[in-house]
Amino acid sequence: MAKIGVYAGSFDPVTNGHLDIIQRASKLFDQLYVVIMNNTSKKYTFTFAEKQELLKKSLLPLNCSNVEVKTAANQLVAQVAHELGARFLVRGLRTAADLNYEISMQQINHLQNNKLETMYLVSQPQYMYVASSMIKEVASYGGRVTDWVPEPVALALQQKLGTQS
Amino acid sequence: MAKIGVYAGSFDPVTNGHLDIIQRASKLFDQLYVVIMNNTSKKYTFTFAEKQELLKKSLLPLNCSNVEVKTAANQLVAQVAHELGARFLVRGLRTAADLNYEISMQQINHLQNNKLETMYLVSQPQYMYVASSMIKEVASYGGRVTDWVPEPVALALQQKLGTQS
Amino acid sequence: MAKIGVYAGSFDPVTNGHLDIIQRASKLFDQLYVVIMNNTSKKYTFTFAEKQELLKKSLLPLNCSNVEVKTAANQLVAQVAHELGARFLVRGLRTAADLNYEISMQQINHLQNNKLETMYLVSQPQYMYVASSMIKEVASYGGRVTDWVPEPVALALQQKLGTQS
Amino acid sequence: MAKIGVYAGSFDPVTNGHLDIIQRASKLFDQLYVVIMNNTSKKYTFTFAEKQELLKKSLLPLNCSNVEVKTAANQLVAQVAHELGARFLVRGLRTAADLNYEISMQQINHLQNNKLETMYLVSQPQYMYVASSMIKEVASYGGRVTDWVPEPVALALQQKLGTQS
Amino acid sequence: MAKIGVYAGSFDPVTNGHLDIIQRASKLFDQLYVVIMNNTSKKYTFTFAEKQELLKKSLLPLNCSNVEVKTAANQLVAQVAHELGARFLVRGLRTAADLNYEISMQQINHLQNNKLETMYLVSQPQYMYVASSMIKEVASYGGRVTDWVPEPVALALQQKLGTQS
Amino acid sequence: MAKIGVYAGSFDPVTNGHLDIIQRASKLFDQLYVVIMNNTSKKYTFTFAEKQELLKKSLLPLNCSNVEVKTAANQLVAQVAHELGARFLVRGLRTAADLNYEISMQQINHLQNNKLETMYLVSQPQYMYVASSMIKEVASYGGRVTDWVPEPVALALQQKLGTQS
Repeated sequence: MAKIGVYAGSFDPVTNGHLDIIQRASKLFDQLYVVIMNNTSKKYTFTFAEKQELLKKSLLPLNCSNVEVKTAANQLVAQVAHELGARFLVRGLRTAADLNYEISMQQINHLQNNKLETMYLVSQPQYMYVASSMIKEVASYGGRVTDWVPEPVALALQQKLGTQS
Repeated sequence: MAKIGVYAGSFDPVTNGHLDIIQRASKLFDQLYVVIMNNTSKKYTFTFAEKQELLKKSLLPLNCSNVEVKTAANQLVAQVAHELGARFLVRGLRTAADLNYEISMQQINHLQNNKLETMYLVSQPQYMYVASSMIKEVASYGGRVTDWVPEPVALALQQKLGTQS
Repeated sequence: MAKIGVYAGSFDPVTNGHLDIIQRASKLFDQLYVVIMNNTSKKYTFTFAEKQELLKKSLLPLNCSNVEVKTAANQLVAQVAHELGARFLVRGLRTAADLNYEISMQQINHLQNNKLETMYLVSQPQYMYVASSMIKEVASYGGRVTDWVPEPVALALQQKLGTQS
Repeated sequence: MAKIGVYAGSFDPVTNGHLDIIQRASKLFDQLYVVIMNNTSKKYTFTFAEKQELLKKSLLPLNCSNVEVKTAANQLVAQVAHELGARFLVRGLRTAADLNYEISMQQINHLQNNKLETMYLVSQPQYMYVASSMIKEVASYGGRVTDWVPEPVALALQQKLGTQS
Repeated sequence: MAKIGVYAGSFDPVTNGHLDIIQRASKLFDQLYVVIMNNTSKKYTFTFAEKQELLKKSLLPLNCSNVEVKTAANQLVAQVAHELGARFLVRGLRTAADLNYEISMQQINHLQNNKLETMYLVSQPQYMYVASSMIKEVASYGGRVTDWVPEPVALALQQKLGTQS
Repeated sequence: MAKIGVYAGSFDPVTNGHLDIIQRASKLFDQLYVVIMNNTSKKYTFTFAEKQELLKKSLLPLNCSNVEVKTAANQLVAQVAHELGARFLVRGLRTAADLNYEISMQQINHLQNNKLETMYLVSQPQYMYVASSMIKEVASYGGRVTDWVPEPVALALQQKLGTQS
């Protein structure tokens, strides 16, 4: 039976940390779906379409033929995985603070779909401490973000949030 | 002198985790007041009246004759305890992240009322990782929440937040 | 039914942090047993008899008439509580690192005796970061420990570990 | 070369915890700039001018002749430090939860300005658990905050947030 | 290419927590090697042979045909994985304290063998807080350990450590 | 008044993480003493003389003219700082687990010498998760340690602990 995994997130925008997890996770599965989760009651910096395009552009240089980008709106990830025929969720884990949240999510997902297994990859140290929200704040002040995001995202951040200093 | 305890929270809505703490705390005191704290500047999912009704309904099967539901609006819990003649606060403790917040609250309460003693009960593992806010998010996506809330609350969540899939 | 509590530890030696917990816990119970737990396979700085004497001397100024010192050797605390007719365990809680250990102990105790309830008091900030083991290390270097231990213990530490600088 | 440090924050309002760090940090540097950072997209309780006045008034009794108050709007602290000729950032550190955030900030700052060194002072225990946001919440309920803020701030909080009980 | 995983540990003795991870991990790989790591400079409660027998007996009811028990002495796990042709390490993750240790180990393993990917499964809540060392301590006091270990291990613990009360 | 700092540790052996802290701390002070603390009741892998030589050799390429290596035996660091005329202690901070220990040490040091100020530098991510003890364990299995220690230490580890595979 083919091993199918799901790596879901809001990717607002995708970072080098996400790409690192995707590349490593792609080796664990026959097929890996990267799913952009949209919650219509939340506000995002990038539109659903922009996030998709940035994710696809950023994945190109990784050359992972078994990775496919999907989208989902207002759904629990357990439900998304079920619809995609995936039995495995992949999550990136950074710090201890993440862990308790992840345990909560795992229990929630397990109650929805007890066949779903969640597995964690720990971020590499250089990606461990900088998340999307911080990157956006730095960009909004006109600061450098080039170490943490792929080039298309750096450009998009500058256009969307950048000051013209 | 009768030992009187207070267990306060927003109970938006009450969960099985809350009920577990109430049942266990009721054995420590002659009288335990469960106080729904309302902060008029905050937004809640359930109204004050709904929260009261859900709490009372959920407490019925526990059969704790020394537990009484109270309400308070825009007050510090130290003040509420003072007015109820209670010298003990009970708090449920889940994870390490909770602990630092609790230490802060204990110091704040102590400055208001240095006769007030705070004691903690640690949640049982099955209740440790799922809080009201997460339960509401799951319910809003039409997910199952039956393991974490009493039946009247599951029903109320479905009516208030549920999608009609 | 009288509420009986147990506060157990190795007390090698008793610190001001312990005394703070004992004093506060004594108000929660009709009777509080402070139990010196001895594990014959472990090495202690003070003998069982010395620990008892230091604890009793240090408790004198607290004037807690419902506190009694007991000893136990090679027993689980759940068993000790059962023999003393106590349904409540009191534990002092300091930092987040403590919490995970305490959750483990609570589950172990619950499996031995599911009638036993564990409750936690959080140390006051001035006692939160200095444990018996550190106090002994400081004393062994001839350092000051006077803020953290009662006078009889400071004296005993100097005699047992102190250098004659 | 003169050693110049920057201690930046929103100071909404300044607390005794901040003053403790300023006083201790002032001994490390020839010149210490205390910089009120304003983010025009955020909402503050006190205006920029009020925060400045409260900070200056509160610093007076400390008698630190090498401390100067500055302001900055919508800037990264790394940029502010560069403009002030400062090579050192001082940060107060309280709990473990703070630490991960600080590591993130340090990496962000380092990418902007790799000559900038960040150093941490750990808050004293009595200031460790009570932050500006909590102090404001207590004040809004008419509670006591006198242990955590200097007198001019206690007064200002009462005028701004206090209830007239 | 077959996906081969390694789950290594001292298994002194195997617990229900280990078995839970093994069962779940077995679904991720074509072949899973469970490796008992022996460090000849450390002291264990059970001999190498006893640990092997207990692990094999405990695995029987799980019916995982793609799981095989191996042993290794005085080796780094990265080296063991290389010799077994495994590209994946599986680790069980319990609490935040574990996480920092795991990040260290992952970096150490990566320096030895940068093709090796480590993935984590989070223990189920009922297994999250009780480790082998605590189980042995409970057993040595004659306490109950039946919820945390398979039957053959409970028996072996009683014979090895139990008191004849 | 000259600013004098102390950076103390057991340096058994010195790592790249230590060297990173020393280099950065040297910019904060007019004079920085790196003090090898020897506790005669503890067992070390390297002798006092070896640790000194390795530290001196490793410092050479850093070219920090204001750094001097000192030694101390069976002393509290607060006392060492006093004798060296230093008012500042520098500590490297890695993870949250470190922080609680550091708060304890700071309070202990402050009780001995309330003029002493402790400041923390956070390790760079690549040094954050690998400590001396782990490096020695890896070396003892014949593993690679080259990323974490300077060359003279790598050599010394191989001679002292290495297997001749």
